[in-house]
Amino acid sequence: MDIKELGEFGLISRLTKDIKPQHSSTLKGIGDDAAVLDFGQEQTLVTTDILLEGVHFNLEYVPLKHLGYKAAVVNFSDIYAMNGRPTQIVVALGISKRFTVEQMEELFSGIRLACEVYGVDLVGGDTTASYTGLTISITCLGVAKKEDIVYRNGAKVNDLICCTGNLGAAYLGLQLLERERLVAEVSPEEAQKAFEGKEYLLERQLKPEARKDVIEALRKAGIKPTSMMDISDGLSSELLHICKESKVGCCVYSGKIPVDYEAVAMAEELNFDIVTCALNGGEDYELLFTIDQKDYEKIIPVEDVNIIGYIQKPELGSVLMGRNGEEIALKAQGFDAFPEGK
Amino acid sequence: MDIKELGEFGLISRLTKDIKPQHSSTLKGIGDDAAVLDFGQEQTLVTTDILLEGVHFNLEYVPLKHLGYKAAVVNFSDIYAMNGRPTQIVVALGISKRFTVEQMEELFSGIRLACEVYGVDLVGGDTTASYTGLTISITCLGVAKKEDIVYRNGAKVNDLICCTGNLGAAYLGLQLLERERLVAEVSPEEAQKAFEGKEYLLERQLKPEARKDVIEALRKAGIKPTSMMDISDGLSSELLHICKESKVGCCVYSGKIPVDYEAVAMAEELNFDIVTCALNGGEDYELLFTIDQKDYEKIIPVEDVNIIGYIQKPELGSVLMGRNGEEIALKAQGFDAFPEGK
Repeated sequence: MDIKELGEFGLISRLTKDIKPQHSSTLKGIGDDAAVLDFGQEQTLVTTDILLEGVHFNLEYVPLKHLGYKAAVVNFSDIYAMNGRPTQIVVALGISKRFTVEQMEELFSGIRLACEVYGVDLVGGDTTASYTGLTISITCLGVAKKEDIVYRNGAKVNDLICCTGNLGAAYLGLQLLERERLVAEVSPEEAQKAFEGKEYLLERQLKPEARKDVIEALRKAGIKPTSMMDISDGLSSELLHICKESKVGCCVYSGKIPVDYEAVAMAEELNFDIVTCALNGGEDYELLFTIDQKDYEKIIPVEDVNIIGYIQKPELGSVLMGRNGEEIALKAQGFDAFPEGK
Repeated sequence: MDIKELGEFGLISRLTKDIKPQHSSTLKGIGDDAAVLDFGQEQTLVTTDILLEGVHFNLEYVPLKHLGYKAAVVNFSDIYAMNGRPTQIVVALGISKRFTVEQMEELFSGIRLACEVYGVDLVGGDTTASYTGLTISITCLGVAKKEDIVYRNGAKVNDLICCTGNLGAAYLGLQLLERERLVAEVSPEEAQKAFEGKEYLLERQLKPEARKDVIEALRKAGIKPTSMMDISDGLSSELLHICKESKVGCCVYSGKIPVDYEAVAMAEELNFDIVTCALNGGEDYELLFTIDQKDYEKIIPVEDVNIIGYIQKPELGSVLMGRNGEEIALKAQGFDAFPEGK
């Protein structure tokens, strides 16, 4: 169905029908000039992310439902990275006329699924026509007790550097999708075959998850990180942010950086260095955090957390320690929001 | 300067340098995964607006500084329309490569000016390249005491309908700018001359203000509206929203709808009906609200508020009463976010 048949208000009511707030903090969701929220004694966290067609996603191979899911989850990830809990989102969409109502329902079904999985309320938004492409701008609110919030600037010398899950797979999934996009134009079956055994890489790129589980496990283990970020631009870039904000240096062991076996195989196939992919790939949405050495015993039983290095004095710099003990200065080569040729 | 010379983080730090939070509720602004806010006992309001080049603004005649100002103010207006106070914004930008760093500084200078004028903190955002055009997505947070918040659904039979300022001027300013855009291509001097004596119309379109003053005056006068909205899409459309949400009808006197003399002259020049412009023009960002009849005496001394009609039983419908007593059903013909041909 053509969107203009429904009009703005018709589309909004179609996309948001049956949305019922789950959070006690959501007093009034969609349907007024602003949503009304009550955070009581907790502090409010707010973060925003904008995704543009052709820059952040390619609809030739990204299903709209996955896109909606990812657009919401990357925002939740930012709230978890403050050691908070996401509670509400508002969604602003710019939609070109090539999209149908059904496609926007697909997109919204992904956003709504993410909200359901993570227990977040969709409380408002703005929807408008665009001349070209699809724009998705989501702002997420969250809450945390004042004493629980973890900033980027709290890392201290001798803290342990931890990262969750594994890195580089989302980037390698993207490379695979980009390569097979060209193949698929000629032979969709062949492209499909090329994906076999690489499902994990595709999932990491197309449907990332935020590490709510780790945040909960850390709380249960009685650990409050000294600093934390989510890894959206790449491990190197995020580590340097933490070091800069905390005015410290770091040493990371390249052999300790966690990678998945599918990622290793894919990197080999593409003739990429897997450590470089893990350091600079981005979009893994894992958590990077530092903990006090005294919490070492406590972190061991926490699932899916890897200790990859330690914080050192700023004058020692931020370095990657190779397998043979060689030191290489860390450089930020993460996602470039303003690449050449755009 | 080319934006890619600075990169994303360089651009952000350039655009946000010297931004210091003014609100005691802003505990941490720009620079982490999320901003941290403390709203204490008050409730939180959240609203979002997305502006797309070519749809919401034309940079042939909209100065970037004005655009930034307007993009922020339209969000503040939504918070005032809840009888709240805007406190923080986050700004997400999609920027095509035809824009320079200096132009983005212009845009931001407008956003920052609006924040200064209205006492709002800029606490975060996201900045990225786009393939085409400029996208501005702003989310605004605000606060209000629970008992002060005014929704759209509280209008009762016999309530008085009020609107602030005057209507239609922003729309007529847009018509003027569109007409002179074509003239200006041939003769800029002639276009400039055509603007003389019409400065108010241009200002209404290019640099609208939110009615903070009226919200404060109502509080001072001890009046809490029974329902309220800001007029962004047009008086008709907004009135019908209030009637639908409140399950009532309304009667508005066409002769009471406030219009400015410059708007009247411009409408005549263009052969438009001024009442139609006022009813359907949109973008005036005035406030539309209803008050209990018992507050009639109190509202009289409040500056710049006009009583334009009254709320009636739903079975009597929503009507416009003409100067000769003729009744016309109100129809929403406001801004169409999904017009034909897009």
